[in-house]
Amino acid sequence: MTISGNPQFDLRNLTFRETPSQDDPEKVRAIVEATGFFSEEEVEISVELVRERLLRGIESGYYFLFAEDDKGKLVGYTCYGPVTGTESSFDLYWIVVDNDFQRYGTGKLLDSKTAALVREMGGTRIYAETSSREQYEPTRTFYRKAGYHETAYLEDFYAPEDGKMIFVKKVV
Amino acid sequence: MTISGNPQFDLRNLTFRETPSQDDPEKVRAIVEATGFFSEEEVEISVELVRERLLRGIESGYYFLFAEDDKGKLVGYTCYGPVTGTESSFDLYWIVVDNDFQRYGTGKLLDSKTAALVREMGGTRIYAETSSREQYEPTRTFYRKAGYHETAYLEDFYAPEDGKMIFVKKVV
Repeated sequence: MTISGNPQFDLRNLTFRETPSQDDPEKVRAIVEATGFFSEEEVEISVELVRERLLRGIESGYYFLFAEDDKGKLVGYTCYGPVTGTESSFDLYWIVVDNDFQRYGTGKLLDSKTAALVREMGGTRIYAETSSREQYEPTRTFYRKAGYHETAYLEDFYAPEDGKMIFVKKVV
Repeated sequence: MTISGNPQFDLRNLTFRETPSQDDPEKVRAIVEATGFFSEEEVEISVELVRERLLRGIESGYYFLFAEDDKGKLVGYTCYGPVTGTESSFDLYWIVVDNDFQRYGTGKLLDSKTAALVREMGGTRIYAETSSREQYEPTRTFYRKAGYHETAYLEDFYAPEDGKMIFVKKVV
């Protein structure tokens, strides 16, 4: 598949790895920041989770899947992990695709590979949360297409007129 | 008010404090364990939150309200805090009353004093989560009487046949 703007990109050339390396915090910062979608505080959290994982290993509870192109550039990633106190529920904390690599199915591929990893770990459900604000409609559309459905809505959760929507996907 | 089994107990003799001291982790363990209501893992978490607070102060995000009787015995407590990434939402992580002091309104008093503290901090909503299992019906009844209402239900969240119910109370 080739699309103008990124004629060389081909999903089949992506490679995936699960183990973060020392330069991933800054790579993650770069692509999360570049989306223009997240607040400064949110960007810091995304970076912090990679650092936590580097520091404490899987004890941190944060698992990753990084997608890189054939030049080794980080194209997108997911951060997920088991929900403490549950038998087999997982949270999808982050799923981000670099601006230049969106609309090629990278996000969907990352999500489905993440779901397969969750299944291998004995997980049965993946939860993803998002804001109810208009701005996040593309995110919600993404989740719906990826097999999630809306299971809860917490009115005014983030702020007045900014509720939380909880999506869930069964991976059994 | 005096009730057989605890004839000396009077709600008006309770004193409240917000700052944890070094012996609170073990006091909290004792009353949480004694309820017989929580798993070992849950007991550990309740203790861990007090330790985190002692170690990191309010940076930990964990706030407490301890209720003690006129002999200084810990009778019950709440653990709550602002939800990261929200403007004014709070989580009520723990509300526990010692077995010997239940049914006197201690829980309700702890909850309303906690709500007042949340309001002082600018909070507008308090969320409390509980299992949908039969065993937790008294907990759900407690929340309803304390002014919370059920706002979301996540089927099979904790385990098959064990969903999560999310309650919320407005404190504006």
